[in-house]
Amino acid sequence: MQTFTVSYQITCFEGETIHEKTKWICLEQSVELPEELVLPGILEKVIGRVKDINPISETSYLVDIEWPCDNIGHDRIQFLNVLFGNISLKPGIRILNVEWAKFAELFNGPAFGIRGIRQRRGIEKRPMACGVLKPMGLESDALAELAYDFSTGGIDFIKDDHSLADQVYAPFTDRVTSITTKLKHCEEEFGYRAHYYPNITGTPSQMKERYEMAKESGADGVMVLPHLSGFETMHELASSEIDLPIMAHPAFSGALVSAANHGFSPAFLYGELYRAFGADFTIYPNTGGRFSFSGQECIEINNCARTVSSPFKPMFPLPGGGMKRETIPHWVNEYGNDMVFLIGASLFQHPDGIQKAVRELIAVLETT
Amino acid sequence: MQTFTVSYQITCFEGETIHEKTKWICLEQSVELPEELVLPGILEKVIGRVKDINPISETSYLVDIEWPCDNIGHDRIQFLNVLFGNISLKPGIRILNVEWAKFAELFNGPAFGIRGIRQRRGIEKRPMACGVLKPMGLESDALAELAYDFSTGGIDFIKDDHSLADQVYAPFTDRVTSITTKLKHCEEEFGYRAHYYPNITGTPSQMKERYEMAKESGADGVMVLPHLSGFETMHELASSEIDLPIMAHPAFSGALVSAANHGFSPAFLYGELYRAFGADFTIYPNTGGRFSFSGQECIEINNCARTVSSPFKPMFPLPGGGMKRETIPHWVNEYGNDMVFLIGASLFQHPDGIQKAVRELIAVLETT
Repeated sequence: MQTFTVSYQITCFEGETIHEKTKWICLEQSVELPEELVLPGILEKVIGRVKDINPISETSYLVDIEWPCDNIGHDRIQFLNVLFGNISLKPGIRILNVEWAKFAELFNGPAFGIRGIRQRRGIEKRPMACGVLKPMGLESDALAELAYDFSTGGIDFIKDDHSLADQVYAPFTDRVTSITTKLKHCEEEFGYRAHYYPNITGTPSQMKERYEMAKESGADGVMVLPHLSGFETMHELASSEIDLPIMAHPAFSGALVSAANHGFSPAFLYGELYRAFGADFTIYPNTGGRFSFSGQECIEINNCARTVSSPFKPMFPLPGGGMKRETIPHWVNEYGNDMVFLIGASLFQHPDGIQKAVRELIAVLETT
Repeated sequence: MQTFTVSYQITCFEGETIHEKTKWICLEQSVELPEELVLPGILEKVIGRVKDINPISETSYLVDIEWPCDNIGHDRIQFLNVLFGNISLKPGIRILNVEWAKFAELFNGPAFGIRGIRQRRGIEKRPMACGVLKPMGLESDALAELAYDFSTGGIDFIKDDHSLADQVYAPFTDRVTSITTKLKHCEEEFGYRAHYYPNITGTPSQMKERYEMAKESGADGVMVLPHLSGFETMHELASSEIDLPIMAHPAFSGALVSAANHGFSPAFLYGELYRAFGADFTIYPNTGGRFSFSGQECIEINNCARTVSSPFKPMFPLPGGGMKRETIPHWVNEYGNDMVFLIGASLFQHPDGIQKAVRELIAVLETT
């Protein structure tokens, strides 16, 4: 029988024992019935099997459970369901790892990955930077002017702020057309333009239409919010014939990673799950910014995003959320060269304006 | 300017003050920039405004913030994003309430609701019961036999276990066809059959196909896992021309409700959000079962699901997760008549079999 292993950190609360709790998981995530109500032939075929239990403190354990691959079939929703469906409702269970090698066919992973993105961008080795078009409330023309400033400064990528959807301030089609047109002018004038990733939202059907529209209007990729639009929607776009890379944004993901003993480890969620589901870039909140991951957690996200011991192409880590332009050399030193740094407010804060701020930033990245 | 109000429970940790934290939310969920970097004309147009702050303990507060409706536009993804996008990554923020009246046009709510479901089922007033086809691992014929037993016992509804997707054990089309065929036989024999709700998964396109296929084969509704398939996918199905009611299942929702000071209140998530997004039934883990809500929390879920002070049709609460057939009179007394009780293992445990168990259960429901 083909199986795959999931690694958990399990915490026992008053009245719980690790053996009972792991056995409960083996039943709950398969037959969802007490053992005695299930025919033995079925039990053997479908329930999880505890492979390993290692204590890491008085109350918590690293646990490996082995599951039959047939429980998933060719269905990524059911994969997520076996991973963290009903057990999401039980405190003290955190997912650390999945044996991805067994899912090389179920998931397509990034369509481009680090190498593909570097080829498209024409930058071989240095770390890169991404600016953000914001705030919401600006009209399309103003956003296009901003894109022009970023682009003439020489930024590698620009993305919409994730709050730009289809508001009256700057409706989707109008915004994307204004910005891509302005960037074409930049290219005609200077022989260079930034690569632009609009944010796409809406129903699954609208997302497809916007993905196509982004391609047609000359955008270079799109941003998707997988926790809001659905992981399957992202996977479907990444697997489609339209060849636009995808940035995955962590909006709405916080509750999954904010408890130290529950949910997903940040490395698993932002580094592994986004990658399997087709993200070419994983956006995550960098340590020391407005949110609350540790430096070690960020390094682990980067490692998971880029490791070659995965059946999927490596993806770019894209840390943001309060990243300052002055500290970029430090982060390059910490995180390495296969990075795209997402810099928002800090570029707006330069006393001589965005263009100057971007020029200085790119000069720094070119010397690393 | 049209606005809507969101109510939060906000907890302050060391070094935080309630005024700074609420102001941060007002900026983070709109402009995502420090105030001084935003043009005043834009600020006035888009940022949140704190309406009310009421302490409920030394460190936590009930807070109302008012947001411009134009920040959402006609986009439900952006609605979720303003509700709990980036702030999901900040500890100590829990969503309690939204001024739904302002969203009567953005959301369609349940297509049928309690009244529509009662009409279809032909049961005017009494509480109802739903059985579960499980475990995963049974083949389609065995599941159909089980459906027949439930149906001849007189159960009101049957649903697939949420682990039944499209596995080799019982592939979707094969399973749904076998079960609906068997239920037709039951109707021919006895003039009665249970209403059957298969579980639909897959990509958004596959979900649509399966929704249509369920209708064509004579199923009476479907079950959807909105946290896995995406809320927009559920809303799109509920709003489509195919007239099949939807049960929403809470798989993968746990991290959103398991911290007392973060995420969503259970009543908001299972009672209000599922309803806006088109669920006719909200499945949630009942108190005292395998999961961990309080009795009061369950009552609040029921109240939110059924209240008439909502722009959307009332939906059926469908508590499950360890519900015992013997305790049904107690729950009817606690929760009222507009309920469907989801009873899994307990019906399988009856010494005289499922048919007998169901007969006794329905007899109890008929006398309430």
